[in-house]
Amino acid sequence: MKELFGSPGRVSGFMLRTGQCLFAAASVVFMLSAPGFYNSTAFCYLIASMGLLTLWSFGLACLDLHALRSKKNLQNPVLVSLFVVGDWVTSILSLAGACSAAGVVVLYARDFKKDFCRSPPHFACSRFQISVVLAFISWFFLAISSHVMFWLLAAF
Amino acid sequence: MKELFGSPGRVSGFMLRTGQCLFAAASVVFMLSAPGFYNSTAFCYLIASMGLLTLWSFGLACLDLHALRSKKNLQNPVLVSLFVVGDWVTSILSLAGACSAAGVVVLYARDFKKDFCRSPPHFACSRFQISVVLAFISWFFLAISSHVMFWLLAAF
Repeated sequence: MKELFGSPGRVSGFMLRTGQCLFAAASVVFMLSAPGFYNSTAFCYLIASMGLLTLWSFGLACLDLHALRSKKNLQNPVLVSLFVVGDWVTSILSLAGACSAAGVVVLYARDFKKDFCRSPPHFACSRFQISVVLAFISWFFLAISSHVMFWLLAAF
Repeated sequence: MKELFGSPGRVSGFMLRTGQCLFAAASVVFMLSAPGFYNSTAFCYLIASMGLLTLWSFGLACLDLHALRSKKNLQNPVLVSLFVVGDWVTSILSLAGACSAAGVVVLYARDFKKDFCRSPPHFACSRFQISVVLAFISWFFLAISSHVMFWLLAAF
């Protein structure tokens, strides 16, 4: 049994999952609270991918907590393979969501000659930006988790 | 010495690198040939990240070719660590570039009520789209390479 930082069934793993879940949920909340987000496909996709990440991380955080309390070992090849596939899929989807939303935010706030944030239609650019930053933080935690999982799987 | 598909110094590795290099270069060419790409930060960033990917893959393709011709073994921990770091950095940057450009293309082509592709300023949306698709194909090949490299490093 490897004792890596962030591996499943350890306190560090549980903290990482909780961090992912909280930041992803906060990102969804900020985006939903910004009026006019539904005008952009990229923002709707960010909400979908961060929603998926919230659910996935919440499930794994519960599993880690259960393993911590009952002192169970979660590190068997089948479980770790499942974690690896899920982590990689959510990781790629959430990075894609964060980046596409970031591209659109930069376009609104900087690229257009007519500033869409300060003049009509008065997009809530600051909320979009906060949501994107939270999504990137959540993705960063997930990237650590998924690399640790892949390393564990390769070392079996 | 592991004999994985796509590992360095093998024909499959060389083919993957060549594919990455060609698709990334084609993506840059299509984007540069589209008038007005410089109005969007996301498109400029796509060109930068695909340019970096072209250089990196070209370098590794040359190294693979040299190893194939001289029957050298490239699989030592130091070299593979270097490949892993380079692959992951370029992989994240290129996925970020492709996704942010895709977000902006979808915004231009579908989200705005006034279609920016068919009415003034007549953006060259089809070229933007082809460039983004080529970038995603190039990233897909790079994702295979980087996972193989990470697997090799973990298995040392």
